[in-house]
Amino acid sequence: MRVAGKDYRTIWMDGAVVKTINQPLLPHRFEIVDLPTHRDTANAISTMILRGAGAIGAAGGFGMAQVYLEAPADDPQRAEYVQEGYQTLRNTRPTAQDLFYALDRVRMAGEAGGADAAVAEAQQIADEYVEAGRLIAQNGSPLITDGARVLTHCNAGWLAFVDWGSALAPVYFAHRAGRKVSVLADETRPRGQGARLTAWELAQEGVPVSIIADNAAGLLMRRGEIDLVITGADRIAANGDVANKIGTYEKALCAQANNVPFYVAAPLSTFDVNCPDGDHIPIEERCGDEVLFAYGRNDAGEFVRVRLAPEGVRARNPAFDVTPAELITGIITEKGIIKACREDIAKLAS
Amino acid sequence: MRVAGKDYRTIWMDGAVVKTINQPLLPHRFEIVDLPTHRDTANAISTMILRGAGAIGAAGGFGMAQVYLEAPADDPQRAEYVQEGYQTLRNTRPTAQDLFYALDRVRMAGEAGGADAAVAEAQQIADEYVEAGRLIAQNGSPLITDGARVLTHCNAGWLAFVDWGSALAPVYFAHRAGRKVSVLADETRPRGQGARLTAWELAQEGVPVSIIADNAAGLLMRRGEIDLVITGADRIAANGDVANKIGTYEKALCAQANNVPFYVAAPLSTFDVNCPDGDHIPIEERCGDEVLFAYGRNDAGEFVRVRLAPEGVRARNPAFDVTPAELITGIITEKGIIKACREDIAKLAS
Repeated sequence: MRVAGKDYRTIWMDGAVVKTINQPLLPHRFEIVDLPTHRDTANAISTMILRGAGAIGAAGGFGMAQVYLEAPADDPQRAEYVQEGYQTLRNTRPTAQDLFYALDRVRMAGEAGGADAAVAEAQQIADEYVEAGRLIAQNGSPLITDGARVLTHCNAGWLAFVDWGSALAPVYFAHRAGRKVSVLADETRPRGQGARLTAWELAQEGVPVSIIADNAAGLLMRRGEIDLVITGADRIAANGDVANKIGTYEKALCAQANNVPFYVAAPLSTFDVNCPDGDHIPIEERCGDEVLFAYGRNDAGEFVRVRLAPEGVRARNPAFDVTPAELITGIITEKGIIKACREDIAKLAS
Repeated sequence: MRVAGKDYRTIWMDGAVVKTINQPLLPHRFEIVDLPTHRDTANAISTMILRGAGAIGAAGGFGMAQVYLEAPADDPQRAEYVQEGYQTLRNTRPTAQDLFYALDRVRMAGEAGGADAAVAEAQQIADEYVEAGRLIAQNGSPLITDGARVLTHCNAGWLAFVDWGSALAPVYFAHRAGRKVSVLADETRPRGQGARLTAWELAQEGVPVSIIADNAAGLLMRRGEIDLVITGADRIAANGDVANKIGTYEKALCAQANNVPFYVAAPLSTFDVNCPDGDHIPIEERCGDEVLFAYGRNDAGEFVRVRLAPEGVRARNPAFDVTPAELITGIITEKGIIKACREDIAKLAS
């Protein structure tokens, strides 16, 4: 997708170095960061230098390829190094299904064919994310009728994938096809991915966007100012329950109460058919400081954090919630739009 | 209520000067601000130096008393000055019913008995808010069983009234009675009244409190970690629909979906029996900058604002929403707990 008129991917590999956009600096500064080793890549995932289901998946794949590039030539040191690297990458984010999916694929390729095969598999996964995004864009675009006002939560645009994205992909497709579409972006506290990343992405592509506080979606739906909701997913259980950014569940309840269609967009790599339902998806708890502080640019243009809350008061900070399948109108995948139910998901996976 | 061990009211009159706690500086600095004229008082209401249903009501009453103290002795100048002052105060916040209630009472007293009567009536209104808060505390306290985990949204504590508050009053009562009670405070973007004011108030009184992002309440209810919700109200229509801080409606939907009791606490002055339902309550739209920026204290202890969003992207900022009566378990008033229905409200008003 475009940044100041030039095309970029979210993450790519250059020799042994993984390169990615430094997302915490957005929207204020556009900067590419180098991740020379798998430990740097793991650190970039856990500190959210990059985030989002597909971007985490691609980063996991590239990171695992780095493990093979770095590993000693001979066993048992090689096997130990691979296992340690795999665990380091796996421990970065507990909820994201795409991470495990990519790690396992690259490890399998690396075990069979060594470092070159691992790098090729990681590259293949990244390319598949691009193609999945393009197909999600195409499959979801009929939902975006002319004049559609779309609500989205968090960022499931191209910054959350490798290109195109998931939730925003149909919006980009409809916009490029000349349809009028506007987006309301939930701010998405505590990390502000909606205000920072979704608003920035859409503005770069010329799609009209307004930011709202996470609290405002209910009122706007009640007033009939939102035509449909599309969000991404971090993991989809076998029964269609969806783990996604904290607050997604609240938006789904608002949508149901106001008869607004609620869609989830995700590639097959986000489905975890071994997970029976949403109650079995582990929910990451992050540091309370994300809630107690806000990060941004001050009037002098410097990045600073400001304390919002009293000293000595703590915060709870679950990073994801679970939206039960019965609140979901449909799931937009690269194979088409399916129902959030066991039968459709089993068919998709086979 | 207590600040560093000393008892304060939120707002009071000292001669012709209205005095109030400077709430935008909380929780970082505790400071009393002087409002020498009714224009200063009106400005304090519209810029949210003080906010909250009862505090706005008391400020409106005191401001209207200032109008009579300032007015020329003779008509037609006196009548013109009174009318202008009334309008200036009335135009500060469109949603708050308590403002209109207090303005009208003090104007009636001033017309009948002049400036002294207006001051006495304004003082009487402030005292009534204190008493209403004490009775709401008492009437609501049986809901706070030992070990109760209460969610609240925005700030409807003593800072939102004159003392005690509405939503937090039963919590304070139960805590002082020795019952174990803890509060989850929604941050309440964009102005952060939960993170700043509710957390500060409760901490000063020694009530355990944790802050959460507004997005997190749904997950925590689904997990069974919230026993009841209590919020305040800015206006209650004749049918029991409640206008309150933006996001209240979303919490009510979460509560209903998870069988969590959802209570509203408000004095009689917040009921607007002339308003048939929530669709007739005007909803204030505030400046989008409140969403695009966050205000807080930097590491050097200075108050700064930081930009969260890209330049050039706009924000929508409705300040209130409407929770339909059917989502409300009960309304805690100074006359007892009533149902959110036309019959109970009519009985209460008569």
